[in-house]
Amino acid sequence: MKPITWNGKELILLDQSKLPNTVEYIHCTDWRTVVEAIKMLRVRGAPAIGVAAAYALVLVAREVETKEGSYKDKLEAFIHNACILKESRPTAINLAWAIERILQKVENHVGIFSDVINSIEQEAIVIEEEDKALNEAIGENGLTLFEEKRGVRILTHCNAGALATAGIGTALGVIRKLHKNGQLERVYADETRPLLQGARLTSFELYEEGIPITLQTDSMAAYAMQQGFIDAVIVGADRITTNGDVANKIGTYGVAVLAKAHDIPFYVAAPYSTFDFTLQDGTQIPIEMRADEEVTSLYGKNVAPLGVDVLNPAFDVTPHELVTAIITEQGVLQPDYRESISALQKGCM
Amino acid sequence: MKPITWNGKELILLDQSKLPNTVEYIHCTDWRTVVEAIKMLRVRGAPAIGVAAAYALVLVAREVETKEGSYKDKLEAFIHNACILKESRPTAINLAWAIERILQKVENHVGIFSDVINSIEQEAIVIEEEDKALNEAIGENGLTLFEEKRGVRILTHCNAGALATAGIGTALGVIRKLHKNGQLERVYADETRPLLQGARLTSFELYEEGIPITLQTDSMAAYAMQQGFIDAVIVGADRITTNGDVANKIGTYGVAVLAKAHDIPFYVAAPYSTFDFTLQDGTQIPIEMRADEEVTSLYGKNVAPLGVDVLNPAFDVTPHELVTAIITEQGVLQPDYRESISALQKGCM
Repeated sequence: MKPITWNGKELILLDQSKLPNTVEYIHCTDWRTVVEAIKMLRVRGAPAIGVAAAYALVLVAREVETKEGSYKDKLEAFIHNACILKESRPTAINLAWAIERILQKVENHVGIFSDVINSIEQEAIVIEEEDKALNEAIGENGLTLFEEKRGVRILTHCNAGALATAGIGTALGVIRKLHKNGQLERVYADETRPLLQGARLTSFELYEEGIPITLQTDSMAAYAMQQGFIDAVIVGADRITTNGDVANKIGTYGVAVLAKAHDIPFYVAAPYSTFDFTLQDGTQIPIEMRADEEVTSLYGKNVAPLGVDVLNPAFDVTPHELVTAIITEQGVLQPDYRESISALQKGCM
Repeated sequence: MKPITWNGKELILLDQSKLPNTVEYIHCTDWRTVVEAIKMLRVRGAPAIGVAAAYALVLVAREVETKEGSYKDKLEAFIHNACILKESRPTAINLAWAIERILQKVENHVGIFSDVINSIEQEAIVIEEEDKALNEAIGENGLTLFEEKRGVRILTHCNAGALATAGIGTALGVIRKLHKNGQLERVYADETRPLLQGARLTSFELYEEGIPITLQTDSMAAYAMQQGFIDAVIVGADRITTNGDVANKIGTYGVAVLAKAHDIPFYVAAPYSTFDFTLQDGTQIPIEMRADEEVTSLYGKNVAPLGVDVLNPAFDVTPHELVTAIITEQGVLQPDYRESISALQKGCM
């Protein structure tokens, strides 16, 4: 069940907001449909959003090409729409990263505009293929943290799996490799309120594959740690700053504090594209605040009095002090993160 | 909106499982209906369960009285049914406490069985009236922890309010007093998965009264603390052991760990009847495990693959090291809790 499929004509997105009850696909020929799908979390997960955005730019370019105007006019229209796409969600950096990468391709292009469309499509395909390969490498690198350990029990939060990427996932990529190696005993998945990605997506993904998984409410993570059920936490990331601070799904920070209090290692699994080398620390990351209704209603039923105030940040920031290691496709980063992330940026891992 | 009303003939319970969408009352003339209501959390909250059970014993006694048999036969039948009632939920001690208190009354009774019914009813009324008064005293005692402070922001978990007691609540009793005194800025209420007592009951109760309240998912408590939104945590309790360990709604332990990590005081508000003087520490408290469906489905919709394993403890235990103080009707207990709880037991507060 692939979250993203490009068939050369349209971008086909699995509507993850309807899982696990309904398996429905959205056929996008208009890039605005992709923007709406990103905003409504029909496609979600930092790397998957990046890949979807790359393909959406092919749709942008095709639309721009049909309009009258000079090369410059078309380029401007393309950049304008790319910016709208980029602003569809503010926290995950992979979205901006994929768009910037393609914009560079377009800006370096010489010749008529129609020629650039093919090159955008090729770049989008490369981004998708790279993401698949990255996931494999992250999984392999994650294994080095567990050496010869057997019976490993991992807690994860939200969904950093096949549904969040073009491949086997980041955090769930490591978990899949552990399982394949016979080292995994069980995954404990936080349900991840408000949108229940842990219940709807992670437990769905892993249960389908026969990987032993226990679903729990977010409030049970502390209990599971207290009972000695958890050997390590592995989560994904939406943005990592140069000091190692990590933005990820709301609730991740709490899990990191709990892990520290129980002496459990807290690992983050993320590719190069998740690092924001322009930011010094997590206080600079914009945190998306989402609609009250995500908290106050469930499947159309109110669970709270109408009009009550709601706090609904979609992400939080885990300070680097709580991060035991960051698993990337190029290797495992250890503190001091300023140094190790700088080495990653320079390609000297 | 009272959770429990005794009209001399029947016990009327507000069906809290249907709040806030539907306000529905259950008229119990059979004690078995009360057992079912306790099991299904139609009536919940440790003190409220105690009060409901006390009145249910009047219904037990009335039923037993209609049967043929000697005083001894009737007494045995009464005790048998009282035990069934006592076992309806295992963790909250107030249930057992109220039943034991009435059983003692019955066992000390001399004369024909029909005469004891009146005395059971009187004792149940006393237990209810006492609970009201206790709540007021807990509220007043809680105020001493905040001295002249203004703009106080309190985080609470689950519902330890008017819906959980016969009065203004334990944790919410303190909050109500702070509000009345003009010292409260805002309450942050964890929604409290899986059964959403924080969303459905706490935010309902406080919002109706015009007390400023912000609802958040359980996973946002850490974020709220990190952002400096919280000055203190106040929660209720289902059982407290002689060393100060506290059983309360699942998720409480996590909140306590987070409070410690953010240097935020963590207060527990509970009456005398919540203390289990027979237990040395929290490891001895039975933890009720509840049905998987509470986690895997919401309003009849599956949120997870059918058959997935689920962890669903209804309570957790917060070790005494994380408890800053325990607010009782007799005063505020401070560590060392072995000493202060022993003083409470001996009535030397």
